[in-house]
Amino acid sequence: MINDSVAMMQRRVRVALGHEPADLLLTGGNIVNVFTLAVEQADIAIVDSRIAGVGRYPWAAKQTIDITGRYVMPGFIDAHMHLESTLLTPAELARVIVPHGTTATLSDSHEIGNVLGIPGIDMLIEASENLPFDLFFAASSCVPAVSWELAGATLGPVEVGTLLGRERVLSLAEVMDVPAVLAGDAKMLAKIERSLHAGKAVDGHAPGMLGRDLQAYACTGIRSDHESSTVEEAIAKAGAGILVQVREGSSALNLDAILPALAAGKLGDNWCLVTDDIFPNDLLKNGHIDGLLRRCVAGGVKPADAIRHATLVPARHYGLADRGAVAPGFLADLVVTDDLTNFRVREVFKAGVLAARDGAMAIDLPPRTLKYGNTINPGPIDESIFRLRLSAGTQLVIGIVPDQIITTAQSTTVKAGDWVFDPAIDIVLVACIERHHATGKHGVGLVSGFGFTKHGAFGSSVGHDSHNLVVAGTNAADMAACVTALQDSGGGFVVCAGGEVRALLPLPIGGLLSPMSGVDVARKLAEVNAAAQVLGCKLAMPFGTLSFLALPVIPDVRITPLGLFDVRTQQFVK
Amino acid sequence: MINDSVAMMQRRVRVALGHEPADLLLTGGNIVNVFTLAVEQADIAIVDSRIAGVGRYPWAAKQTIDITGRYVMPGFIDAHMHLESTLLTPAELARVIVPHGTTATLSDSHEIGNVLGIPGIDMLIEASENLPFDLFFAASSCVPAVSWELAGATLGPVEVGTLLGRERVLSLAEVMDVPAVLAGDAKMLAKIERSLHAGKAVDGHAPGMLGRDLQAYACTGIRSDHESSTVEEAIAKAGAGILVQVREGSSALNLDAILPALAAGKLGDNWCLVTDDIFPNDLLKNGHIDGLLRRCVAGGVKPADAIRHATLVPARHYGLADRGAVAPGFLADLVVTDDLTNFRVREVFKAGVLAARDGAMAIDLPPRTLKYGNTINPGPIDESIFRLRLSAGTQLVIGIVPDQIITTAQSTTVKAGDWVFDPAIDIVLVACIERHHATGKHGVGLVSGFGFTKHGAFGSSVGHDSHNLVVAGTNAADMAACVTALQDSGGGFVVCAGGEVRALLPLPIGGLLSPMSGVDVARKLAEVNAAAQVLGCKLAMPFGTLSFLALPVIPDVRITPLGLFDVRTQQFVK
Repeated sequence: MINDSVAMMQRRVRVALGHEPADLLLTGGNIVNVFTLAVEQADIAIVDSRIAGVGRYPWAAKQTIDITGRYVMPGFIDAHMHLESTLLTPAELARVIVPHGTTATLSDSHEIGNVLGIPGIDMLIEASENLPFDLFFAASSCVPAVSWELAGATLGPVEVGTLLGRERVLSLAEVMDVPAVLAGDAKMLAKIERSLHAGKAVDGHAPGMLGRDLQAYACTGIRSDHESSTVEEAIAKAGAGILVQVREGSSALNLDAILPALAAGKLGDNWCLVTDDIFPNDLLKNGHIDGLLRRCVAGGVKPADAIRHATLVPARHYGLADRGAVAPGFLADLVVTDDLTNFRVREVFKAGVLAARDGAMAIDLPPRTLKYGNTINPGPIDESIFRLRLSAGTQLVIGIVPDQIITTAQSTTVKAGDWVFDPAIDIVLVACIERHHATGKHGVGLVSGFGFTKHGAFGSSVGHDSHNLVVAGTNAADMAACVTALQDSGGGFVVCAGGEVRALLPLPIGGLLSPMSGVDVARKLAEVNAAAQVLGCKLAMPFGTLSFLALPVIPDVRITPLGLFDVRTQQFVK
Repeated sequence: MINDSVAMMQRRVRVALGHEPADLLLTGGNIVNVFTLAVEQADIAIVDSRIAGVGRYPWAAKQTIDITGRYVMPGFIDAHMHLESTLLTPAELARVIVPHGTTATLSDSHEIGNVLGIPGIDMLIEASENLPFDLFFAASSCVPAVSWELAGATLGPVEVGTLLGRERVLSLAEVMDVPAVLAGDAKMLAKIERSLHAGKAVDGHAPGMLGRDLQAYACTGIRSDHESSTVEEAIAKAGAGILVQVREGSSALNLDAILPALAAGKLGDNWCLVTDDIFPNDLLKNGHIDGLLRRCVAGGVKPADAIRHATLVPARHYGLADRGAVAPGFLADLVVTDDLTNFRVREVFKAGVLAARDGAMAIDLPPRTLKYGNTINPGPIDESIFRLRLSAGTQLVIGIVPDQIITTAQSTTVKAGDWVFDPAIDIVLVACIERHHATGKHGVGLVSGFGFTKHGAFGSSVGHDSHNLVVAGTNAADMAACVTALQDSGGGFVVCAGGEVRALLPLPIGGLLSPMSGVDVARKLAEVNAAAQVLGCKLAMPFGTLSFLALPVIPDVRITPLGLFDVRTQQFVK
């Protein structure tokens, strides 16, 4: 982890003592000290990617940048996110978040893990080398999400152990299979044990957990969680030794609820800021950790304290001993802002190099040269599979809850025969088609809440967590057209009507990621959303909703390639 | 490091959920939460040496101890000390400090390292297994203290690397050779680099350091220091990312000076409490970390905050992920006190076992079975070496400064011929005799400040850091008697007069440690001190003073086996 040498140490010492010029000297800035929480004017001498010294001394330098009047803080760290949720390659994510001051992220790349297994994760690890931010990874603990899921790959204790051996893998990723933990499942606990033995962290995912369950969950060694949605839950978790990763993503928004506890110091030191799942348009619009800091300070957290929790606290939690502070010997990952209230980022330095300035990259990014093939392999699909033949009576319907990923179990009365769309009733077909190994497995059911008023269909190759194809629509022809379009494009988000593609965001890398720029992806995303709206859809993010309809660990009802699944009873619906 | 297994995790989960009785349940205590700093009444369920849960639930247990009304906190950690300074074996140190609530210490055993090298350190590592406190070690970075010293062993980068591979070695020990660091000495920096690459900490030792020197020192990766003696120094170090280890030992006392800064929060989170060098009589009289907590709270530090800095903060700094908190999954190292002001320790649990109660051990300690030989090997010593033949004129004299380890350069006017003691003048002979390899090397000079009024001599086999024999006295016969006594006893502290031993504390383990009990060692120490007083000595701890007269890295003048050494000019005195 430490990219340092005796020769570099010698050079740093000479620079600090003034015997040799620094590579770069930042003069006059107000330095946020995350150790003492003092803010004091000082210069920063940088050599070989690290800070040699901080203070007011007659240092010479090859290059000097005067930042008098501005504020300097450590680069921001997003301690829990899923790279795939941004739909971007690592380099393109850099272009979006580095200008906002992010210099390190920790990604649980379990989406690509479900599609391609270790080779997929290794592809992303490789694609994130030599970037102006450090993309660290967590070894996915729950691939697939449940044992019977038809995913593209399985990560057992051995595979998890392999991933934990990677230098840039810092933790075991969010242990979502709470029932397995509470049941003492040996395979699940073996993954935790391996991570602890490797000296790495273990991350949690336990929405709403309190009481004895929380004690049982935490006593295994799980020491972080990003699912707190109330002050009570956050305080209980912090007190149980769990780092509360306050989450503010695209769909799951917890900061406002927990902010009063942060401002009142009720979590002690045991919190940081994360985004979990965030779309590129939100990053482009609201920023990243910088935007969360702005809100923390507006909510009453002292600026230096807020910054500490976006830098030093997560760095220490994950054993990043040379990150998260503006101090001698630390990596020169630095953010320069106009003030400590709006956190408008002016300059971002990564390892001592000016990486971004005034919202744009100041350096070239490596070319986007990921090598990948088409992973969308559902086999031959006949549109007849989308004909839902019903007996007369009551039929179960998946009910969408706007802006949430839970669903409700609803019902509708049907006549015997093939289901037919009625524009007056907000119910359409939904299907999930296995797409990794052309097994032909598929499930079809009904869903309510998309708001279709016209004929058409949406399709997605993002279908948490196994990433089979998920299609919702009014008729078999448009649904089949979605599948064909996704096969042809290697995956993505698609809207079809009249048997034709109306809008498409291709995500050809594993059916999850785009090779395009962040701005282009955001534009294409707006296009597919607009095309969905034309069909009557009122949801803010229909493809987000669609992609979660297949996740069989969230209540109440889900569509899977094996049929409709009732999460409450853990039974398939006959 | 993690002594855990899937089977134990399963059992903990079952206990936490109430499916199985705990091994031990502590009920009704007020728990100090070092994460949130809250103090709340709760029960603690313990199984297999760890905490399964904390809360108020209907837990069953094989054994229940009611501690209603008392306070429970994590076991205390002394993050920097030298085992050898206690003169005790690890097991006997346990008997002294565990009843005071200490459950972990980090020892830089560079004294035994200077005498016996890696085998000596390994002997102590082995002797500290299965004790009711965790004795961790730091890999000594400066053995010998300076390159020309005649020590028993040398620890170069390779040997340091070997030690860093030991599981219970947590850091590179205090980097005392500040000039080597600031000169960029490759061997010194290579030791630091090895520790950082091994993912371990690097400890510092930089008295009075400020300004650019501090930046240069810290930029190498050194991240702790126990030498701060002023608020200004402590704040500067904390701000430079250095954990301020506030030291309160037998001779070096810094807590009172720094306490106002701790109470005012000026060091942020970047401090902990250590003893460095402490004699057993002080431990028996004033306690250990418990005594320092009492003083912190009396000085205005909030109790839970003070406790956090004696537990979680040092645990995290040294990567002890399962220590330092009363929380699920953590080792059940617990201290029960009557209150949070006096910190009178009632019960101490180590890994879930009641280890001490009301000041005494509640379990048997392993037998003291260290295997060691006599390391006092000065070869044949003729008392003629203690005759100091002088030319008429001015003669350099080492001046003792009471209660400090620095000396001053003084002078006296002498007549030609052999030096002769004058009871009216507080000057005696001082000698340092190489004792590892019978080289016969010895240096003789004059020292002022011991206060001899009668004929006699003191001798010590503890002679920092190389631990050659140091003898001070009025005449050659008594000094030679001291050497003989030390040879015969395998080392120790001795007082001779009239050619006979008047008092002796044998330290036969490496000439540094006693195999006796802490109480017996303290009694013998009182005896040798009293015998020294009979000769006129007024110093509180004459053998402490004597043992530092040979340390050639502390100003102004020292006695070494190669002669009188002027530290200021780095020259031997002709």
